[in-house]
Amino acid sequence: MGYSMSQTVMPVGILGFGGLGQAAARLLAPKQEMRWVAAADHLGYAYAPQGLNPDRAIAVYHQQGSVGHLSDYGTLSDDSIAQLIPQAEVQGYFLALPNLPNTFMADVARQFIRSGWRGVLVDALKRTSAVEQLVALQSELAQAGITYMTGCGATPGLLTAAAAIAAQSYAEVHQVKITFGVGIANWEVYRATIREDIAHLPGYDVEKARAMSDEEVAALLDKTQGILALENMEHADDIMLEMAGICSRDQVTVGGVVDTRNPQKPLSTNVKVTGRTFEGKISTHTFTLGDETSMAANVCGPAFGYLKAGMRLHQRGLHGLFTAAEVMPLFVR
Amino acid sequence: MGYSMSQTVMPVGILGFGGLGQAAARLLAPKQEMRWVAAADHLGYAYAPQGLNPDRAIAVYHQQGSVGHLSDYGTLSDDSIAQLIPQAEVQGYFLALPNLPNTFMADVARQFIRSGWRGVLVDALKRTSAVEQLVALQSELAQAGITYMTGCGATPGLLTAAAAIAAQSYAEVHQVKITFGVGIANWEVYRATIREDIAHLPGYDVEKARAMSDEEVAALLDKTQGILALENMEHADDIMLEMAGICSRDQVTVGGVVDTRNPQKPLSTNVKVTGRTFEGKISTHTFTLGDETSMAANVCGPAFGYLKAGMRLHQRGLHGLFTAAEVMPLFVR
Repeated sequence: MGYSMSQTVMPVGILGFGGLGQAAARLLAPKQEMRWVAAADHLGYAYAPQGLNPDRAIAVYHQQGSVGHLSDYGTLSDDSIAQLIPQAEVQGYFLALPNLPNTFMADVARQFIRSGWRGVLVDALKRTSAVEQLVALQSELAQAGITYMTGCGATPGLLTAAAAIAAQSYAEVHQVKITFGVGIANWEVYRATIREDIAHLPGYDVEKARAMSDEEVAALLDKTQGILALENMEHADDIMLEMAGICSRDQVTVGGVVDTRNPQKPLSTNVKVTGRTFEGKISTHTFTLGDETSMAANVCGPAFGYLKAGMRLHQRGLHGLFTAAEVMPLFVR
Repeated sequence: MGYSMSQTVMPVGILGFGGLGQAAARLLAPKQEMRWVAAADHLGYAYAPQGLNPDRAIAVYHQQGSVGHLSDYGTLSDDSIAQLIPQAEVQGYFLALPNLPNTFMADVARQFIRSGWRGVLVDALKRTSAVEQLVALQSELAQAGITYMTGCGATPGLLTAAAAIAAQSYAEVHQVKITFGVGIANWEVYRATIREDIAHLPGYDVEKARAMSDEEVAALLDKTQGILALENMEHADDIMLEMAGICSRDQVTVGGVVDTRNPQKPLSTNVKVTGRTFEGKISTHTFTLGDETSMAANVCGPAFGYLKAGMRLHQRGLHGLFTAAEVMPLFVR
């Protein structure tokens, strides 16, 4: 088609190696178009130009606490990202980092800007205020030659993109309503994510949730039978759809139910887009995710699809900040 | 965001002024980012740089058979497209032309290539074989400085894009199944479209359907109580998803039910995308269109959304052929 792209394998890195980063490593393993060559966590990093082995990396992380312990490829460091960037030949990074503190992703983006590295970054950020900090970095990213894809997970990400497509039938969009169901058998694997969810509960905020010990989280979940019911969450789908000119942010609502004791989803994740057609009819399009698809599949799949799309933009000289609502993700084979 | 675009109003034209072209003119009327300035049908054309009035144009077309009869702006011509192109200052055209004969859209594309005009073309083509003819023109379009967006209606178009988004959750896509429901109160308004549907029925083909008189169509519809049930249709969603690297074309099926005597849809139009996640789970995402959205809204909305996206590509020097499966449509305000 009109786009063309070199057929070489794209070397990619994963920053953060919790549940999301580990899932990303597994997802990449069978891909022909991308090779996982670099990883960093808060205690170290690993780099292997010929590719890292996800089974080994995950085992070492679990047993020793950092990919920096990987023999041959690992290095322990308390400044792992800054040390990895100049060493590794990587065209694109998935920032599978905790969403908290809320300034973390923008701080990492600034590290990349300062480093002189040029390439594609993709995040699966959730909060509007975190995306706003990246919007503020827009021209710095562009000047640095970085193509930064933000909000490219499940929601925001997959569902925001589906909403942007659905909006096409309408002259005016009245409401975008995202409702997610998440079922996880074992919340300890997603420690950071669960705290991010708790921060959305009445009486909690980001700082309070982050300060909770594992025991305190377990005690809270005992009280709710493992269920977290979330309403009117601060989710960046709103700012992304507003920036794409589709509707104003206050027309976008995000809520959901997280079951931390059951791999089955308590409800099917969906986005409903209501609007008025040019003939004056009010209607609602619905995009519903299959219950068997995990959070990991719905976050990491789009993240790499947007990383591939971002690489095409980058090769065309298009740098700066892009969201999942304005760029079509490309399928990674 | 990373993209930026001049804020001037985009002058657009509509080629073909049947049901689809007329709906497109009405849809454009309230838009601030686009102005409808040109139209052509098989007997004439009209051009007004300050904008055409849809009510007047539709009335004149119904009463006198061609927009060429519009006072002040109309010209009668048996070579209307060729005459309009060099005269009109138009940045993008929606080719709301009949899908039949199957070579028609490619012939019109060749007219644009020969004319030296540079800009964006968008079609809502349905058949795979028609899109294949445009694929063959890919490098000629690129050399001519034309950005051609093909398959940008409802299906292919809106539903193909939704399928491309849905595919992101999967390591491997097994099936894309599109099922549409269309309800129209008055099939005579969509004469060409109904013949295209009939051509998909067992015992019919494109030539046979096209040769049918209105009375023959009415007689056929009498026999089926106005219902056309279509299976395994030749629809370009298949080649578009294949070209986007999402699945092979034989994994894509399109079918539907058209009720020609009832504005209510006989079933909700939907696309189901089934695949395997990286963890080995098989699941299905579903995108369902609201029943109150008309064929006109679901075809013309995306068409102009892709025209806007095509204009950004064009301004960036990206020419050639693009499909709805690889480019995110942009919302036209």
